[in-house]
Amino acid sequence: MIIVREVAQLRQAIAERRQLGANGAKAVNDSASVQQQYKVGFVPTMGYLHEGHASLMQKAREMSDTVVLSIFVNPIQFGPNEDLDSYPRDEARDLEVARREGVDIVFLPTVAEMYPQPTRTKIHVSALTERLCGASRPGHFDGVTTVVAKLFNMVNPDLAFFGMKDAQQVAVLQQMVTDLNMNVTIVPCPIVREADGLALSSRNVYLSAEQREQALVLSRSLRKVREVSEDVVRNTFTIRQIHQMVESTIASSPLADIDYIEILTFPGLEPILPEQRLSDVEEDIIVALAVKFGNTRLIDNIRLQKAEVLSHV
Amino acid sequence: MIIVREVAQLRQAIAERRQLGANGAKAVNDSASVQQQYKVGFVPTMGYLHEGHASLMQKAREMSDTVVLSIFVNPIQFGPNEDLDSYPRDEARDLEVARREGVDIVFLPTVAEMYPQPTRTKIHVSALTERLCGASRPGHFDGVTTVVAKLFNMVNPDLAFFGMKDAQQVAVLQQMVTDLNMNVTIVPCPIVREADGLALSSRNVYLSAEQREQALVLSRSLRKVREVSEDVVRNTFTIRQIHQMVESTIASSPLADIDYIEILTFPGLEPILPEQRLSDVEEDIIVALAVKFGNTRLIDNIRLQKAEVLSHV
Repeated sequence: MIIVREVAQLRQAIAERRQLGANGAKAVNDSASVQQQYKVGFVPTMGYLHEGHASLMQKAREMSDTVVLSIFVNPIQFGPNEDLDSYPRDEARDLEVARREGVDIVFLPTVAEMYPQPTRTKIHVSALTERLCGASRPGHFDGVTTVVAKLFNMVNPDLAFFGMKDAQQVAVLQQMVTDLNMNVTIVPCPIVREADGLALSSRNVYLSAEQREQALVLSRSLRKVREVSEDVVRNTFTIRQIHQMVESTIASSPLADIDYIEILTFPGLEPILPEQRLSDVEEDIIVALAVKFGNTRLIDNIRLQKAEVLSHV
Repeated sequence: MIIVREVAQLRQAIAERRQLGANGAKAVNDSASVQQQYKVGFVPTMGYLHEGHASLMQKAREMSDTVVLSIFVNPIQFGPNEDLDSYPRDEARDLEVARREGVDIVFLPTVAEMYPQPTRTKIHVSALTERLCGASRPGHFDGVTTVVAKLFNMVNPDLAFFGMKDAQQVAVLQQMVTDLNMNVTIVPCPIVREADGLALSSRNVYLSAEQREQALVLSRSLRKVREVSEDVVRNTFTIRQIHQMVESTIASSPLADIDYIEILTFPGLEPILPEQRLSDVEEDIIVALAVKFGNTRLIDNIRLQKAEVLSHV
């Protein structure tokens, strides 16, 4: 595993892997199409890696010839009162996880390497960033799209892997890639959960034992939504009823401070009329939550694909 | 010369040229560095090509193995009251010019090919876009940076050629490339002028004979600036005096309607104190003009490199 901290080294390491891949292909078959099949898979992270990240690396390993992991806590996606300074870091452990998952190249830049000057250039995706975390965290997604575009320009990946826990991030990045004709395929990967249902997050380490226990209402409320959607009687619930069911489940936890509960189309993130019945919605749906426990803000979501919602007969 | 109208064809044509280049290099020397030396040069334009564009293609031909030209009148860089609909177009003549200059691939997309959906993603460069044409044409540079990023992602050029007539555009694009770590070198090329001094522009065709004659005040005023900068006595003029000299020269033309006259650092586009003497400015300087003749807005500029301004002894 190669560990690089500078952009120039990163570009060089990837170019060498691609060149080796091209030479290998030549030995077998001298056609252009063979070289194009050589895939660089990229997993951008903020480190403090958990099994959710590991699942992204596994997927990347499975689908790519070279796997590149980046670890960078990106300052421009944090608001002034957010947890940039306290965001958990553990480089040594992260490198162990990367090694275990068969990563080829780890990119560990400093802030000065990523932003030698404060960036004057920002990428903004409209509409999709105005709801959910975009409303609670102004400027957050501009920071995400800008740093991901920078990383894509450094790595030039064929495939990039993102967890569906940040479903809005997946939708926003997919929109950016489409709109800007970036030559990369976004591969969304399923949420990974603890045995008791808590969605994995680097921020879970902030939780006290009591908060950790009460945070299970998030996944519990989303499981109820899944059950309703699969039930031939209850899938006639309206969006408003689903919303109320989720809200009352979360409110049963006295430590839960709800930031938002939203039921939207996915990936368009458009609102759905509250009176519409679940079984009548024509598009995929996301039920997305952000809930604070003390100073720790957790997010979770469930995506209902149209096929999974029994149709209302 | 290959003419393509779809992004997929463009990518394919460029991949084939790169592959041929790589195979050619292999025959000589099997090192990775040889392949990296294969250069794709890119000249993005809005068509109605003149000798200014031709000079960009010539520079690209000289510095690159494959030359790609794009012709696309980009709607999102025009304001609601600007000349999008009347912008001059002549595809047949443009293709002749491209052929004459030895272009390899011409990309001629439709608006629907470039924007299958209205773009929700915009790239914004701050500070540099707030003065000069950015102040007169709100949103213009977001349209430019966004379409250029799209084209860069389609062509993946090593070199991209832009005329210094749009000096602010060069500065803004260079900032975008640096900030977003785009793997391309911006090559600024000198302004090309008619024998009588008028800077070449596709918009010159709008001018009546009388407007065309009076428009010569632009280049005349800038030549005076050059003379002053090279004169050991007059280069102690202050920025304010230079500004007044340019303004009175342009005002001598009754049809000239001044949009702006600005004297700034280049490429930072920072203001310079009016009391500062020309010879004392520590950075390169740009004197930039936008002047309307009837409905036609012309721009011109002169760049004084520090070495060209005789130092004040």
